[in-house]
Amino acid sequence: MNSREELDDFVKNGHQQYLPHLSIDPVIFGYHDQQLKILLLEWIGHNGWGLPGGFIQRREPLSQAANRILKERTGLDDVFLQQFHTFGDSPYRLEDQSARELSEKLGHQIQDSWLFERTLSISYVALVDYSKVIVTTDFFTEGYQWCDIREIPPLLFDQNEVVEKALATLRRQLFHEPIGYNLLAEKFTLPEIHALYETILGKKLDQWNFAKKLVNLGIIKRLAEKRSIGAHRSPFLYQFEKETYEAALEQGIVQTY
Amino acid sequence: MNSREELDDFVKNGHQQYLPHLSIDPVIFGYHDQQLKILLLEWIGHNGWGLPGGFIQRREPLSQAANRILKERTGLDDVFLQQFHTFGDSPYRLEDQSARELSEKLGHQIQDSWLFERTLSISYVALVDYSKVIVTTDFFTEGYQWCDIREIPPLLFDQNEVVEKALATLRRQLFHEPIGYNLLAEKFTLPEIHALYETILGKKLDQWNFAKKLVNLGIIKRLAEKRSIGAHRSPFLYQFEKETYEAALEQGIVQTY
Repeated sequence: MNSREELDDFVKNGHQQYLPHLSIDPVIFGYHDQQLKILLLEWIGHNGWGLPGGFIQRREPLSQAANRILKERTGLDDVFLQQFHTFGDSPYRLEDQSARELSEKLGHQIQDSWLFERTLSISYVALVDYSKVIVTTDFFTEGYQWCDIREIPPLLFDQNEVVEKALATLRRQLFHEPIGYNLLAEKFTLPEIHALYETILGKKLDQWNFAKKLVNLGIIKRLAEKRSIGAHRSPFLYQFEKETYEAALEQGIVQTY
Repeated sequence: MNSREELDDFVKNGHQQYLPHLSIDPVIFGYHDQQLKILLLEWIGHNGWGLPGGFIQRREPLSQAANRILKERTGLDDVFLQQFHTFGDSPYRLEDQSARELSEKLGHQIQDSWLFERTLSISYVALVDYSKVIVTTDFFTEGYQWCDIREIPPLLFDQNEVVEKALATLRRQLFHEPIGYNLLAEKFTLPEIHALYETILGKKLDQWNFAKKLVNLGIIKRLAEKRSIGAHRSPFLYQFEKETYEAALEQGIVQTY
C-alpha cells in the first residue's frame, strides 16, 4: 500500500478483500546476544506504540495468514510461530481515543470504515533473531523499535495484556518445544543454550542442573564432538533432539521445568 | 428461538445482533463414574453429529459469550472452561454439502445468509459432571448424545480435529490446573482422584507414584482427617491445593506429569 488512493480504498473497501472483525497480532520476540526484545511499531495518529498486525484475506487459511503477516513485517519465515490466544474481551477496542485520532489523520469518518468496527485479535507468539530482521513499515506505521521486554511502554488497546500473556506462553513452551531451534547454530555448547534459556526466562538457572534436565527431558543430546576454543578449552557440542522430542510431545510425556 | 418467524429472522438478519465470521465451539467433556464423554448435537439437515456452538453478540466480551453459550446448552456455570485454539484453516467450511443441506432444510438460499459465510471457530474446552447436565437443544438441533471419547463419529466440518486437539489440551492441563475441582467432592480419597485422572488420560497410572507426584507438585494435599468406610478401612482424605497451586502457576514452576 503505497499511494494515497490505495490507502483510501483500503480504509473504505478493505473488507471486500479481508474478513472484518478479526486481526492477527503477532508478538514477535527477538533474541540476540543475551537480550530479549519485542517488535513494536509506531502507529500514526496514536502517538504511541503497538504490535505489528494484519488481516486475514477472505479465502486465506488462518495459519497461512499468520505466516504471511510475519514474513511481510520481518522478511522471515521458517521461525517459531504459534497461536496462543484470541483476545476479545474489549468490545469497544476500536471506539477509543486512538481510533478517533487515527480516523482523523486518515481523513475518514470513523463510522464509515470497517477498520473501526469491533475487532477480535488472534494472537501469535514468534521468536526470531532480531539481528537478521529487516522490518517493513507501511502507511499506518511511522517507525519501529526492538524494545527490551523489561521496558515495554503503554501500548495500543489491550496490547500490554497481550504481550504479558505472550511472554508467559513463550516461557512455558521453552520446555515443551524445541523453540530455540532457529536461534542457535545446529551444534552448540551448553553455555550458549544456557544463556538463551536464562535470557528468555529472565532468571538465573544452575548450569549443571539445567543441562541434566534438558538431556533427561530429551530436548537436547550431547554429541561425541567437541569444539576447540583454546588451550584446555574444548567443550562438548550439543544438538536439539528434534525427532525424539516431537514423539514425546505426541505422547504427552514431556515435562516442564 | 422457538417460532418459525424468529428462526427466519435469525437466518436473514442475525448478523445485526451477532458478529459474522466467528463462532464459539466448546468441546464439553463430561466425566461421571469413570467414564469420559463429549456432548454432541444432531444438526438438522446434516444427518450427523457436531459440536454445540453459538455466536458472539456484537458488544459482548468474548469470555462472557463462551460462558453464556455453555450455560445455555448445559445449564451449568462455574465449571472448568478454557479457550484453547482458534481454528480457521478451512476457508470453505460453510460451503460444503452439509451447509447446502441445512440451507435447503431451512428454506433459505445459501448465499442469502450470514450463517453460510466463512466462519472461524474459537474453541473452548469445558469439563462438567454429565450426570448433572440438562442439555438444551433448539431449532437447529434435533437431538443430543453424550458420546464416549473412544467412539466419536465423523463430525461436521473439521470438528474431529477440534475434538482431538481439545482432548490433548485437557490431558496436558490436568497437571497444570486444578481442573478436577468441580468433579470431586471438596475432600476426596486417593482412589477417587486416581480414577478421575486415569479416565481422562485413558491409561493406567501407578497409584502410589501418582499420589506422590500430585502432592509434590502441590496440586493436592493430605488432610489429617480420614473417611471411615468400614472395618479397618479409613483412608486419608485429600484436598486440592488451590492457592499454592495458582501461585506456582504464576511463577511457571508447575510440572506436567
